Amino acid sequence: MGLLESIHEPSDLRSLDSVQLAELAEEIRRQMISVVSVNGGHLAPNLGVVELTLALHRAFVTPKDKIVWDVGHQTYVHKLLTGRLAAFKTLRQFNGLSGFPKRSESEYDFFGTGHSSTSISAAVGFAQARDLLHEKYHVVAVIGDGAMTGGMAYEALNYAGQTEMNLIVVLNDNEMSIAPNVGAISSYLNRLRTDPRYDKRKADVEYLLKRIPRIGNKVAKAAEKAKDGLKYLLVPGLWFEELGFTYLGPIDGHNLGLLEQVFEQAKQKKGPVLVHVLTRKGKGYLPAEQNPDVFHGVGPFDRETGEVFKGITPPTYTQVFGETLCALAREDEKIVAITAAMPGGTGLNQFAREFPQRFFDVGIAEQHAVTFAAGLAFGGLKPVVAIYSTFYQRAYDQVLHDVCLQKAPVVLAIDRAGVVGDDGPTHHGVFDISFLRVIPNLTFMAAKDENELRHMLFTAFRLDGPVALRYPRSAGQGVALEPELREIPYGKGEVLREGKDLTLISAGPLVYTCLAAAQELRQRGWEAAVINLRFLRPLDEELIIHYARQTKRLITVEDHILDGGMGSAVLEVLADRGVTDVRVERLGYEDFVDQGPIAVLQQSRGLSVKGILAAADRLLGQARTPRGSLHDLVRLKAR
Amino acid sequence: MGLLESIHEPSDLRSLDSVQLAELAEEIRRQMISVVSVNGGHLAPNLGVVELTLALHRAFVTPKDKIVWDVGHQTYVHKLLTGRLAAFKTLRQFNGLSGFPKRSESEYDFFGTGHSSTSISAAVGFAQARDLLHEKYHVVAVIGDGAMTGGMAYEALNYAGQTEMNLIVVLNDNEMSIAPNVGAISSYLNRLRTDPRYDKRKADVEYLLKRIPRIGNKVAKAAEKAKDGLKYLLVPGLWFEELGFTYLGPIDGHNLGLLEQVFEQAKQKKGPVLVHVLTRKGKGYLPAEQNPDVFHGVGPFDRETGEVFKGITPPTYTQVFGETLCALAREDEKIVAITAAMPGGTGLNQFAREFPQRFFDVGIAEQHAVTFAAGLAFGGLKPVVAIYSTFYQRAYDQVLHDVCLQKAPVVLAIDRAGVVGDDGPTHHGVFDISFLRVIPNLTFMAAKDENELRHMLFTAFRLDGPVALRYPRSAGQGVALEPELREIPYGKGEVLREGKDLTLISAGPLVYTCLAAAQELRQRGWEAAVINLRFLRPLDEELIIHYARQTKRLITVEDHILDGGMGSAVLEVLADRGVTDVRVERLGYEDFVDQGPIAVLQQSRGLSVKGILAAADRLLGQARTPRGSLHDLVRLKAR
Repeated sequence: MGLLESIHEPSDLRSLDSVQLAELAEEIRRQMISVVSVNGGHLAPNLGVVELTLALHRAFVTPKDKIVWDVGHQTYVHKLLTGRLAAFKTLRQFNGLSGFPKRSESEYDFFGTGHSSTSISAAVGFAQARDLLHEKYHVVAVIGDGAMTGGMAYEALNYAGQTEMNLIVVLNDNEMSIAPNVGAISSYLNRLRTDPRYDKRKADVEYLLKRIPRIGNKVAKAAEKAKDGLKYLLVPGLWFEELGFTYLGPIDGHNLGLLEQVFEQAKQKKGPVLVHVLTRKGKGYLPAEQNPDVFHGVGPFDRETGEVFKGITPPTYTQVFGETLCALAREDEKIVAITAAMPGGTGLNQFAREFPQRFFDVGIAEQHAVTFAAGLAFGGLKPVVAIYSTFYQRAYDQVLHDVCLQKAPVVLAIDRAGVVGDDGPTHHGVFDISFLRVIPNLTFMAAKDENELRHMLFTAFRLDGPVALRYPRSAGQGVALEPELREIPYGKGEVLREGKDLTLISAGPLVYTCLAAAQELRQRGWEAAVINLRFLRPLDEELIIHYARQTKRLITVEDHILDGGMGSAVLEVLADRGVTDVRVERLGYEDFVDQGPIAVLQQSRGLSVKGILAAADRLLGQARTPRGSLHDLVRLKAR
Repeated sequence: MGLLESIHEPSDLRSLDSVQLAELAEEIRRQMISVVSVNGGHLAPNLGVVELTLALHRAFVTPKDKIVWDVGHQTYVHKLLTGRLAAFKTLRQFNGLSGFPKRSESEYDFFGTGHSSTSISAAVGFAQARDLLHEKYHVVAVIGDGAMTGGMAYEALNYAGQTEMNLIVVLNDNEMSIAPNVGAISSYLNRLRTDPRYDKRKADVEYLLKRIPRIGNKVAKAAEKAKDGLKYLLVPGLWFEELGFTYLGPIDGHNLGLLEQVFEQAKQKKGPVLVHVLTRKGKGYLPAEQNPDVFHGVGPFDRETGEVFKGITPPTYTQVFGETLCALAREDEKIVAITAAMPGGTGLNQFAREFPQRFFDVGIAEQHAVTFAAGLAFGGLKPVVAIYSTFYQRAYDQVLHDVCLQKAPVVLAIDRAGVVGDDGPTHHGVFDISFLRVIPNLTFMAAKDENELRHMLFTAFRLDGPVALRYPRSAGQGVALEPELREIPYGKGEVLREGKDLTLISAGPLVYTCLAAAQELRQRGWEAAVINLRFLRPLDEELIIHYARQTKRLITVEDHILDGGMGSAVLEVLADRGVTDVRVERLGYEDFVDQGPIAVLQQSRGLSVKGILAAADRLLGQARTPRGSLHDLVRLKAR
């Protein structure tokens, strides 16, 4: 039995000596590599915080003290130390352990996270509540330097800094978010980290201060007055000090003893404290240390060699998006691309290499990304912003006002639309149709396959206004990519199959599921029409009305929450056009969606051939034996 | 004819001498006081930037150079100088001049604003586009110190600071946003502004540096090495310098000559520059100088005395909210309240006075506000966040994940829901139903009058989960306030009037419009049922279904955009329950809504007795003479 098995709760850590702790750290790393090599997950960030997490759980007494993990994908070590070793092999699996902190999973998970830059706000809330309720505990936010580029982190720092509250912010500085960090704060941290002058200067100034009294009264007096200012020289973290925080650091985040010592120091300080900790992403596993971006979030890989298994044969939507954008950009030098810390994830790596001057990674700063794009557009360029669906939730107001109200010709590429799989509820893109389709002036498309995605992207740049384009996280359909790009007829859906008994309506890859279901239905003697809407705004009202009238039964199929989604838009059209005698079954999600394989999640809500057949049975069964209520029967007679 | 009449475009300013400019400034102030005293508007901010705007339009050559005004309510001077004097009397009126910059209004309005903290992002976009397109012009963002508390401003500073781009950010520091500012940055600016040591220290250190060489080699050497560090003492704006900006200031924002001089200096600098300008809100009009918060955004007032006309007799929803919250807080010490820089606007002033320890103004930082509230809730308190509907667009992701996904018991008070009048499209609260009603775990209510608002607020605190509560900007209905607060039955609507011919469905004050319309309909021989839904989530499905079946005709009436709104939710219920033979007319907005009196805006889209009657005619007209298509007739026969 290893040491790790003997850790049932964090207090078990306190009896270990330094040799044992080093051994434990080694075991934790092996355990994480072992599980993530099979399940996939955020390996590199977790390898980087082994000692930091051990130190936190030794210096602070959880669950009394509260630790809030920013983003939360770096909580594997925390999970292993808080009674979740046995369940750890289910990490990120359907019904398994979440890859993020989750309040319902453990009393040690005080605040669920998933998106960046929220931890300080949440921690400030705990600290404020503690003080008002006259309770006594420590509150710690652990935030990466990447997350520090998010404006929300600054809002919280700015707020906390003016208070007297005891609060510890641990800045876990690994010089990366997912990709290497950008921004002035990143440069600043780098100066703190590497500039030998900070130490040197401190020594110099101290020497100087000591000598000054000997020179004479006048200078001494001047020096006295300047002393208050000179303290600035002795404080490397002045930027944080000006925000009201006591700055401690930078310190080596892999030196467990030192970490604990500094945390003890931080606990004694009054008011907000920032502890600047330097860690190395991927620490202790060579392939991850060498390729921290690859091992940031990684699929299954070979533990020995670090080789990542390639499971996907057809190119992903993301790849096709990136390649098509490059092709378009070669023809049109006004095309520029923006990402928020995800050049790889959004398929823009190639664009960044080919057009470095026209590529802008703004860091984890979606709000800035979108409004920046509006500025670029009005400055005469053709910007595309590539952000995941779930992260557009961070830039809603900017999409509404800065882009759409002003009709700025910006292309909003919405990657990872629909469920995304193992990352779970904070990462599924299942709200974007609801919050975007309602925005006036916006054209909103969804691509059924990677070939259509190409034509839609081409089309988007030719429309002189705001365009959103939705596509999922996954391999494409494996369809041929037509070399010639063409414009998709504006606001028009396409009929993929004719049918007189019912109509299946979708947009995005579930169109193919509809086609397969229609095949099955034919076996059963029913003819189902299949419509690919293509445009979620404006809707092809004529097409919908025509098929609604013709078939009287519609099934809408969307990889999205039902409320306010595509099916809801279809209902609006029917009502507005006074078409009342049509039954509509809407397939989609009814609640936040858990983690699990994409197909499993979709099937669980009927987004499958089987689910569509069941819905068809409900509609067509009624057609054969009308079951209407007594009320309906009375009405029929009256007619 | 005054000087102002002779200014047709900014270039006309350049020939004026300093005496004329002072006279012009005086004329501009008189003009603004005159129009705003009648139309209402943002007086104090504009009085504060008269000299600043004159200096900008003299130092920069617009429209070649681009000036982006943050928030934009301080652009009256700018409008007067850019050919809009004649139209100025229509300020904020229906079809009149906007109170904000608007691209469609003038070639001098480069970027429309309304919400805070976007200007630097937009300016960075212009600057980047300029450089890529090899154009030559200056780009200026003018941002208040209040807007600097918004995380988005920081995201943009952080991004711009790492670049080499020429960009000028003018920090218009008047020590206020709407209320006095909060936050560490505000304190920092205050230190820059007021600390005599900054100047003093500079002199002291220079003296010291001069003397050091005389003391001997060793010290000289140390001094030399320390010199690099000592420069920090000479730079008061170190915080901005660390972000990569050259800091100039602080300078007197009412000294026109000095301003122009510094802007010329800024134009010469390479890379991003921040000019710190000190202005006085309300400058030149004593009542506004003395009560800058009252005159921030003000209704009609007496020009001579500065007395604000009180037009509203019944208390506003906002007032009732504030008073009820105080009453509840007296009984329950766990209740705490959060606002984002709007203690007055959200009716929390009284709460702030009565419970200073339990009141938190986080500045213009909606993201932080919401997640902070989630932290407070999990820390054991009962937080209410009071933000305007339009500003919740800034905190969508936080409402989704930090509050609703985690079921945090936070009350989201949504003030200014529906159209708000003269502030126009950026301030109307007409998207919240669409983006909030789709969120799982959220309970979402709308108050039909100030009395119901009280009971709903009471109810909200008794529900152990996230609750949103929507109410408009306006006087209440003048109904009696029941002293005893009671729980509203969960998820249940109320039937305010029975009727067999059609059903009017609403939530919020338009319920009263429905009642009035029902009266009228009775005159015409029709009986209309009236339903107050009360809950937008969960919907009272039984009630809707019952009346849909009974009357076969529904009219939904909402002060909101139609797409995805309340009417859409009603359609979803009908479809899900298989109720097909019901006609539904949805009344609401189809597009961004312009500025104008609330009643006018509502009437323009049929949200009025007349509009409801027209909709009823459309539905009932059909009832009398069925006009169904040929297709429908064939189908009837087939039955």
